[in-house]
Amino acid sequence: MIQTPYLLFLGDAPDALSAKVAQGIKDWRPENAVGQFRMKGCGTTVGLTDMTLQEGLDAGAKTLVIGVANRGGVISAAWTKVLVEALEMGYDIASGLHNLLRDENEIQRAAKVHGGTLHDVRIPSVAYPIANGVKRTGKRCLAVGTDCSVGKMYTGLCMDAEMLKRGMKSTFRPTGQTGILITGGGVPLDAVIADFMAGAVEYLTPDNDDDHWDHIEGQGSLYHVSYSGVTMALIHGGQPDALVLCHEPTRKHMRGLPDYQQPSLEELRDTALLMARVANPACQVTGISINTQHMAEDEARAYIKEVEDRMGLPTTDPFRFGAERLVDALEAL
Amino acid sequence: MIQTPYLLFLGDAPDALSAKVAQGIKDWRPENAVGQFRMKGCGTTVGLTDMTLQEGLDAGAKTLVIGVANRGGVISAAWTKVLVEALEMGYDIASGLHNLLRDENEIQRAAKVHGGTLHDVRIPSVAYPIANGVKRTGKRCLAVGTDCSVGKMYTGLCMDAEMLKRGMKSTFRPTGQTGILITGGGVPLDAVIADFMAGAVEYLTPDNDDDHWDHIEGQGSLYHVSYSGVTMALIHGGQPDALVLCHEPTRKHMRGLPDYQQPSLEELRDTALLMARVANPACQVTGISINTQHMAEDEARAYIKEVEDRMGLPTTDPFRFGAERLVDALEAL
Repeated sequence: MIQTPYLLFLGDAPDALSAKVAQGIKDWRPENAVGQFRMKGCGTTVGLTDMTLQEGLDAGAKTLVIGVANRGGVISAAWTKVLVEALEMGYDIASGLHNLLRDENEIQRAAKVHGGTLHDVRIPSVAYPIANGVKRTGKRCLAVGTDCSVGKMYTGLCMDAEMLKRGMKSTFRPTGQTGILITGGGVPLDAVIADFMAGAVEYLTPDNDDDHWDHIEGQGSLYHVSYSGVTMALIHGGQPDALVLCHEPTRKHMRGLPDYQQPSLEELRDTALLMARVANPACQVTGISINTQHMAEDEARAYIKEVEDRMGLPTTDPFRFGAERLVDALEAL
Repeated sequence: MIQTPYLLFLGDAPDALSAKVAQGIKDWRPENAVGQFRMKGCGTTVGLTDMTLQEGLDAGAKTLVIGVANRGGVISAAWTKVLVEALEMGYDIASGLHNLLRDENEIQRAAKVHGGTLHDVRIPSVAYPIANGVKRTGKRCLAVGTDCSVGKMYTGLCMDAEMLKRGMKSTFRPTGQTGILITGGGVPLDAVIADFMAGAVEYLTPDNDDDHWDHIEGQGSLYHVSYSGVTMALIHGGQPDALVLCHEPTRKHMRGLPDYQQPSLEELRDTALLMARVANPACQVTGISINTQHMAEDEARAYIKEVEDRMGLPTTDPFRFGAERLVDALEAL
């Protein structure tokens, strides 16, 4: 686990898009961030108080979190200077960058000398077991998509937030680096060795109270040939009681695969349920989450209504219109 | 690729079962082995000429292949002495052991000094790409099982051998360490990082002549919750034109999962075909391979006939009764 609260490092982020990890933390776990640290040339903000490293420490920050993508995949000399200074002052550092903190000599050395921990959350830090398939207590909901990047993480976060608002027992279980940085822990599933994928998901969602819900972050798609194996491991390791189907209606083809079309929601429903019932025969499809970010509000509402009428399942864009009905369906299970 | 031919190291193998890698090489690629090397205390043979390391070299051997499992997972001092001597004489060494050759200091040092290559075939040696899903030329057959360890590798090897006997163009494509040691190359799929599984299978089975068949070694099962993600990556990365269903009828439950039953052959047929057609809409189920090793001959023949009548597909135990009919079905495609 990454120690909270964080100071969010925005570095010299040129725009909002490059700071989406920091924005995710601000949106979903504002209590995890005491402020933001911006360098000269930073062209964006996530709306938190600007702080120096010392002010962050004084406000209680334990970890400096890289909340921004690095340009050209290089950790610059200017960044390194700040990160080394943070380690000298007693911070840990957490990063989801492709380039690892531990591969930067100066940063690695400063961490050793000053006893700071470097969290490279793209790399598993645990030797996960092989899945044993034993039925676990507690309830689990998994978001599955017609494609990659259709809003599975946001769907899980929205449902978790709605449950907590209702006083229900709920935990969001991240399986990617953004989710891990938001919550402070999880499994970077796409970096796990093949034999241990399903076991890593079992590890991520252990036995729990009978009325507790885990919202497992989905990855890939059963219909995305590059990543379907990761999705399958989530379905079998996760033993979901409930599946929420996620869809982005404006996609022209499968992400990165111009020769492949998205499946229909009916196909996804039938296939995902078939596979999920191998691990949990009681599994149900309980709702549909539509990512309407590229649609006007009228168009979005009309599309959602059409899907709901056709599929006979509670349908919404939980980020835009609220997750109430998706959570109602889980409460009714 | 591992340099052939091999000298097969049987070490102090107590019995035939512990020497099954060597036996596989002897059975399937006898031209790859000049002889066997046995130590004091070896209680088995694979029926090749016993040779010293020098005799192996004189017969042309390039690589000493560990054809045996090591007791208790430890590479003993007695083994190390032989392996170091082999490196000093100019051998490469190949191993599928869990303990890596490269982690043994003396062996690693001898390899460096004498310029020998250590092949730890459980560990990928290639940075595989992410799968791009682009349709490849040539034909591919994938064995899929109702469970793990039901004879998928032997099915592929039998079909490959039958095709070569007929003068057809055919290659067996190993995805596990035994197959890799038998043929000298392949992808250790269960050790590949999740994101690159399907890409590793694409890499393993590249474009080929239109009338060439790849027989891709299957792994796991869509119905085995510990390993189903690996199977899915094979189905989508492999883009099979033909699926052969593999089944072991005497299994009481899924291997290692006492609470899980095997699916029926009908369920496996429908599910595997559904998923395979995402990557290759023309895919067909062309035959059924029954592993009858625990059945008397009468019982085996009766069972095979029952399955063939029920499923309407060519059915046999290719290792016991020949792969002719399975290959006929591929020729007829």
